Amino acid sequence: MKDYNAASLELHEKHQGKLNVTSVVPVEDREMLSTIYTPGVAAPCLAIAKDPSLAKKLTIKGRTVAVVTDGTAVLGLGDIGPLAAMPVMEGKAILFKEFAGLNAFPIALATKDVEEIVETVKRLAPTFGGINLEDISAPRCFEIERRLTEELDIPVFHDDQHGTAIVVLAGLINACKALGRDVKTAKAVFSGAGAAGVAVAKLLHAYGATDITLCDSKGVIGKDRADLDASKSALLAWSNPRGLSGGLADALQGADIFIGLSKGGLVTSEMVRSMASKPIIFAMANPTPEIMPDEAKAGGAGVVATGRSDFPNQINNLLAFPGVFRGVFDAGALKITEKMKLAAAEALAALVAEPTAERIIPDALDKSATAAVAAAVSRAAAE
Amino acid sequence: MKDYNAASLELHEKHQGKLNVTSVVPVEDREMLSTIYTPGVAAPCLAIAKDPSLAKKLTIKGRTVAVVTDGTAVLGLGDIGPLAAMPVMEGKAILFKEFAGLNAFPIALATKDVEEIVETVKRLAPTFGGINLEDISAPRCFEIERRLTEELDIPVFHDDQHGTAIVVLAGLINACKALGRDVKTAKAVFSGAGAAGVAVAKLLHAYGATDITLCDSKGVIGKDRADLDASKSALLAWSNPRGLSGGLADALQGADIFIGLSKGGLVTSEMVRSMASKPIIFAMANPTPEIMPDEAKAGGAGVVATGRSDFPNQINNLLAFPGVFRGVFDAGALKITEKMKLAAAEALAALVAEPTAERIIPDALDKSATAAVAAAVSRAAAE
Repeated sequence: MKDYNAASLELHEKHQGKLNVTSVVPVEDREMLSTIYTPGVAAPCLAIAKDPSLAKKLTIKGRTVAVVTDGTAVLGLGDIGPLAAMPVMEGKAILFKEFAGLNAFPIALATKDVEEIVETVKRLAPTFGGINLEDISAPRCFEIERRLTEELDIPVFHDDQHGTAIVVLAGLINACKALGRDVKTAKAVFSGAGAAGVAVAKLLHAYGATDITLCDSKGVIGKDRADLDASKSALLAWSNPRGLSGGLADALQGADIFIGLSKGGLVTSEMVRSMASKPIIFAMANPTPEIMPDEAKAGGAGVVATGRSDFPNQINNLLAFPGVFRGVFDAGALKITEKMKLAAAEALAALVAEPTAERIIPDALDKSATAAVAAAVSRAAAE
Repeated sequence: MKDYNAASLELHEKHQGKLNVTSVVPVEDREMLSTIYTPGVAAPCLAIAKDPSLAKKLTIKGRTVAVVTDGTAVLGLGDIGPLAAMPVMEGKAILFKEFAGLNAFPIALATKDVEEIVETVKRLAPTFGGINLEDISAPRCFEIERRLTEELDIPVFHDDQHGTAIVVLAGLINACKALGRDVKTAKAVFSGAGAAGVAVAKLLHAYGATDITLCDSKGVIGKDRADLDASKSALLAWSNPRGLSGGLADALQGADIFIGLSKGGLVTSEMVRSMASKPIIFAMANPTPEIMPDEAKAGGAGVVATGRSDFPNQINNLLAFPGVFRGVFDAGALKITEKMKLAAAEALAALVAEPTAERIIPDALDKSATAAVAAAVSRAAAE
């Protein structure tokens, strides 16, 4: 894998960051100045003062997303703070524009307090038509998202959770199709019960999967664990139906699907070999997967997916989040529902007409994915 | 004056607001994606995590201004709220880009509480290199600006106050030059003691003017007034040296300079005639001046300035704020000082080599004003 670090540092320094805020029209004469600013600008101001719903039509609110972070869980780098998170947020903003045609702007917050983050985003909301939460650590991210979804009248989406969940589910649907399996009865075992792991498990459950078991760094999440926090205990209402205990290696015995959203190198060929025949291996830790594709195949894996672009089957959120926001903006939807996420995953899966072990998901740069997801989300919103 | 309302409404609706957030580079292939986003983006993130001062070099922080409002004093429209204020904030952001080459982004806040505004802006600050407060009503704007200036390590500027003050002072310097007067000894009378009026009076005082009297809607601000709030009472420490009382008409008798930042139509030809010979009339209420230029001239005015582009001598903040921010960004200054504002006003005045009654100030669209103000502010910061 090419080392992009030097190129990235150089680009950031040369341009002093990556975003430009520009006018939709050139301002070259007094006439245009009087149209975009005083005195003409009083007309749209007064129109919105009279009917606030016009803000979405007459200002950038109708096509602009806030990319909000506190810098506590940035990439695999952890809690590096809001300033250091900015390059990721700017990158995300670019992807919103390039893929969905939406404005996005980074909001990097100098607070980690859940209550303060919620109230700050609520106060900012007049400028924005949607909130994309990004790189906020679990379990704080769950409460922040829940509170904002309840208290704001614009869509809120934590991409690390739901973008990942949509793309993983799409990949799993096609991996099962390629191997002639049934997602709903397959035994799925997770390594990682952070924001992404939990969200993927929940969406897989909502899709109909009945045998899901999560492991965190301490082992299988089961009734025997005395150290679980409230959000992990809550998972037991619908996960680990066979009452497994022990470590990841124990849980994997006989399992059909491995979903890794944890740390590199946790899974061995032997562990894959202990699974059911031709297991599905999604090893998505970045940059080093839980198991490298060649080792997974040596253990008998039927399909292997990773988060990396240098192997087949890259699970990349870029396939989901631009289309999800495009869809809710197009539909004028106020919330992003479970139904929309399932529709997005199914639309994404359907883009690969005949899935094979080497191709279960569209290429990350395939803009038809954005269009398909947007259409599916928009349809689900209308229903 | 042409009616720009219809054109403005049409433009806002056609483009759905006026701002685009775009990438500094096209993102057309996987190589560029890996440079602006993962995995390459980890390099600038880690560099900033190690040395936070690099944020200004590697992210948009070093060239981006927040245009912050609560929508309480928008144009002459009053408290129309944050949603309705957005068209003005977007317009302002365009002017920052067009004139200073800086990014600016609207932050329209859903709160009017001083404490909440201060804490919200502080939490947002990691994204921005400067804060432009806009259209926030007096006296709240004074405390918000003071608190933010004290508590943030990036420059804070309330344009309605200080942008106006810089341009008015520049115009007064040249008006006096054209008429052979001395600003420092001239008798100046203000109509309007809101954010702009007070700031202009203070900067004029800092420049050396010794005979300044302010009037609000109730009359002359003097020691006999029992109804003054704390911020207005404080003005008496240095204003109204002759102990005037009564109404605006009383104060104007024998005055050399009228500065109107109040309401249309408050001044008559007779009132101008009661002033000293060839008085200087700055009638800047918008869209209707305190007195129309032809009436002021009928009363014997020596120089007339307004806020309007269809008369000579337009006092327009556009001559100041882009250059002020360009200057402090160039200098890496952390505060905007009185000295910088005075330097900006003098630089602006100096652009008109030989002022006449019909030309005391550069044209609002003259970009050499931005460059001159930026250089002056940057020099003042270095001293």
